[in-house]
Amino acid sequence: MEKRNIVKCHASGIRAVKDAMDVLSGNWKLPILTSLYEGTKRFKQISREVEGISDKMLSKELKELEMNQLVKRTVLDTFPPKVEYELTEHAATLEKLLDAMRDWGLLHRQKIVGK
Amino acid sequence: MEKRNIVKCHASGIRAVKDAMDVLSGNWKLPILTSLYEGTKRFKQISREVEGISDKMLSKELKELEMNQLVKRTVLDTFPPKVEYELTEHAATLEKLLDAMRDWGLLHRQKIVGK
Repeated sequence: MEKRNIVKCHASGIRAVKDAMDVLSGNWKLPILTSLYEGTKRFKQISREVEGISDKMLSKELKELEMNQLVKRTVLDTFPPKVEYELTEHAATLEKLLDAMRDWGLLHRQKIVGK
Repeated sequence: MEKRNIVKCHASGIRAVKDAMDVLSGNWKLPILTSLYEGTKRFKQISREVEGISDKMLSKELKELEMNQLVKRTVLDTFPPKVEYELTEHAATLEKLLDAMRDWGLLHRQKIVGK
């Protein structure tokens, strides 16, 4: 396979790749997105499903996901007010990227670790 | 678009995605891979091309890329001995992943920043 056309990144390509990595960076965003993949959830539900995350961290990560328009936060007109979180349409565009990352991660682990 | 099948990650999926992110993490691996995409290079050549990287950092990043079998280091039998770096065949498998990351990064920047 011609190695030359492997990483056809250029300056703007590198910035775009870094953008993608920054949005998904850290230990918590993927498990949170996975939890919300099953549907709209309350804060405590997500907190229970994402093992080991503190409420402070979950709140920060949800804000970042909201800022990146991957998660939508809805305050319901109840008393006391209830807050719900769900994935946005923009989050749907992550699928191809996450599939490619998962596939390469599995291939790489096989190459390096042999299983 | 059905949001439910957006992020079909499960535990092993999340680990594989994290593996991919860990291998490419940081500010330097992508520019180093891009530099080596043009062919075999000496340490100083890479150092000149990857703006702002210290020799200590370049040495560390090259070791990590070598450990992940993405870069091959060759010591030439000359006096003094010369050292060369090149991408491996395994690095060729990065192409689809980096394309997907670049495409999503561009799409995301367009969505968030509008350009």
